[in-house]
Amino acid sequence: MPNRWGYSQFVLLGFTFLFAAASAIAQPADPLPSWNDGAAKKAIVDFVQTTTTQGSAAFVPPAERIATFDQDGTLWVEHPIYSQLMYCLDRVPAVVKAKPELAKVEPFRTVMSGNREAIARLPMKDLEKILVATLTGMSVDDFNAEAKKWLSTAKDPRWKRPYTELTFLPMQEVMKYLRANGYKTYIVTGGGQDFVRIYSEEVYGVPPEQVVGTAGATKYGYAKDGKPFLTKEPRLLLNDDKAGKPEGIHLMIGRRPYAAFGNSGGDREMLEYAKAGAGTRLSMLVLHDDAEREYAYGPAKGLPATKVGTFPQALYDEAGKQGWVVISMKNDWKKVFAFD
Amino acid sequence: MPNRWGYSQFVLLGFTFLFAAASAIAQPADPLPSWNDGAAKKAIVDFVQTTTTQGSAAFVPPAERIATFDQDGTLWVEHPIYSQLMYCLDRVPAVVKAKPELAKVEPFRTVMSGNREAIARLPMKDLEKILVATLTGMSVDDFNAEAKKWLSTAKDPRWKRPYTELTFLPMQEVMKYLRANGYKTYIVTGGGQDFVRIYSEEVYGVPPEQVVGTAGATKYGYAKDGKPFLTKEPRLLLNDDKAGKPEGIHLMIGRRPYAAFGNSGGDREMLEYAKAGAGTRLSMLVLHDDAEREYAYGPAKGLPATKVGTFPQALYDEAGKQGWVVISMKNDWKKVFAFD
Repeated sequence: MPNRWGYSQFVLLGFTFLFAAASAIAQPADPLPSWNDGAAKKAIVDFVQTTTTQGSAAFVPPAERIATFDQDGTLWVEHPIYSQLMYCLDRVPAVVKAKPELAKVEPFRTVMSGNREAIARLPMKDLEKILVATLTGMSVDDFNAEAKKWLSTAKDPRWKRPYTELTFLPMQEVMKYLRANGYKTYIVTGGGQDFVRIYSEEVYGVPPEQVVGTAGATKYGYAKDGKPFLTKEPRLLLNDDKAGKPEGIHLMIGRRPYAAFGNSGGDREMLEYAKAGAGTRLSMLVLHDDAEREYAYGPAKGLPATKVGTFPQALYDEAGKQGWVVISMKNDWKKVFAFD
Repeated sequence: MPNRWGYSQFVLLGFTFLFAAASAIAQPADPLPSWNDGAAKKAIVDFVQTTTTQGSAAFVPPAERIATFDQDGTLWVEHPIYSQLMYCLDRVPAVVKAKPELAKVEPFRTVMSGNREAIARLPMKDLEKILVATLTGMSVDDFNAEAKKWLSTAKDPRWKRPYTELTFLPMQEVMKYLRANGYKTYIVTGGGQDFVRIYSEEVYGVPPEQVVGTAGATKYGYAKDGKPFLTKEPRLLLNDDKAGKPEGIHLMIGRRPYAAFGNSGGDREMLEYAKAGAGTRLSMLVLHDDAEREYAYGPAKGLPATKVGTFPQALYDEAGKQGWVVISMKNDWKKVFAFD
């Protein structure tokens, strides 16, 4: 009996159908315009089509569509030094100003000297002291404000642009393409979770709650006016690197990703973990082999890895064995940056 | 120039508009049908309207709409004992079978005796031993399979129904109402994160990645066939109770919730933290004052709190001072359970 309500339901259904049809017509032919045709691009498109086509044996229900991306070296430039480490080094003068006794203590003395070569030689345990001094001991709000200010002014010395512009356009396209097909995209980074969350939404379209990173504890307390606030503590909760990546994924997401993207030895376990799941999975490894447009390092040997992750030849050999797909920056990407 | 493409865009816009209009007509008048009219219901509706109406001074951008819900006692029955603790007690025979020497050791001896009064008297440190023995030391996959099996067969002794049916219908309505208005709903529970994630999607429509709970570390390793897997370790990462709730919210979500719902002393800090944010915030406290349809305990004093959280009168006094809204189960809810 077509009463008014029955009629609107009918009209609604018709509209929904036409809307879907019109959307299909409007969809651009190539979701990955910055990619050259080749095995890498094909692997991504095949993965999306197989896992999102109703009736396909490898169909993944929308709720389970999770894709994880390493950040440094996978989504943006990490060479010759991680942007977050630049932030920490840039914060040292303010830390020393607040605690003048540090000026005579290593590694703060070296950082204050401005001697770039000496700074580049600082061992890991000294870098850790700098991280603790510049990333903890303040309120979450103060940290956010400081880091935000730095991000809006600091520039990469080679490109003379804010670090947040140095993201790889082809990887941005992969994230958008996956999201357009119902995947939730996560960043799973060895970098600081709080740091990356500040710009993840603006830069990658990834909301803070979809950033898994190296995370310290916070401590809940009260200001003089009684308002509660959180202080960043030096106690490490999650070292989101190597085995810490699948462990962090379990802690923060609770589902195994169907697709994972990385570029260094720190991503091996995440790529293994994703690929070992049931059904069709995609694990990809970005190879930095483009000295001209970006950098060449690791197995590409154009530059040594200094303050960035490890890139053993064995990792790329493993890619072949485990069915991970290697992305050659030089051959697979038409453009590297949006500003190219 | 209305070429074919321009025309489909125009049609598309028209459809979108009509679709939205039809949806508006189809929306039911009362989003909270199981709630009696009163201050609690009004607070929820006012909050949603104020924070989601474009142009409202308290408008919250969709990306920032986060609402957090305690589980035990807020979303489902917690009395006289948490369901997860029942799971752990029920698992003890299997643990003792695997390690027969435990049969003579406390607290396992008492649990194996089946003496309910003695079990109810076990001190917290004994309960912790039971939690460690039954929730850690196995693979994540084995734990998930065991807990799932238990959830599908175990029944609450009073209602003779699966625990997952003992959720409060009015709170389910609040979650749906918030989601329909662009809020992401999170469970923030003192219970085990891995345990709650097993049924959160099915029972509450909350995906595993939106469950923040008490969480232990996992350890990444390899099976004999080389397949990677995660083992649940006894090392605690997050005690998601009291101050641990805002700390857990920061770790797992990274944004302060606009609305928070709790029912015990374990939720105080979460309610404070939410309410202390800028703009319009909603903090609500469920009062168990319905001995007939559910239980009366805490300030309602019908029953003492035994193995469940603390409910000091002071908490309810604080509600008034801090502008939290108390939900009286007896007066505010027309129905408690869907099966009522």
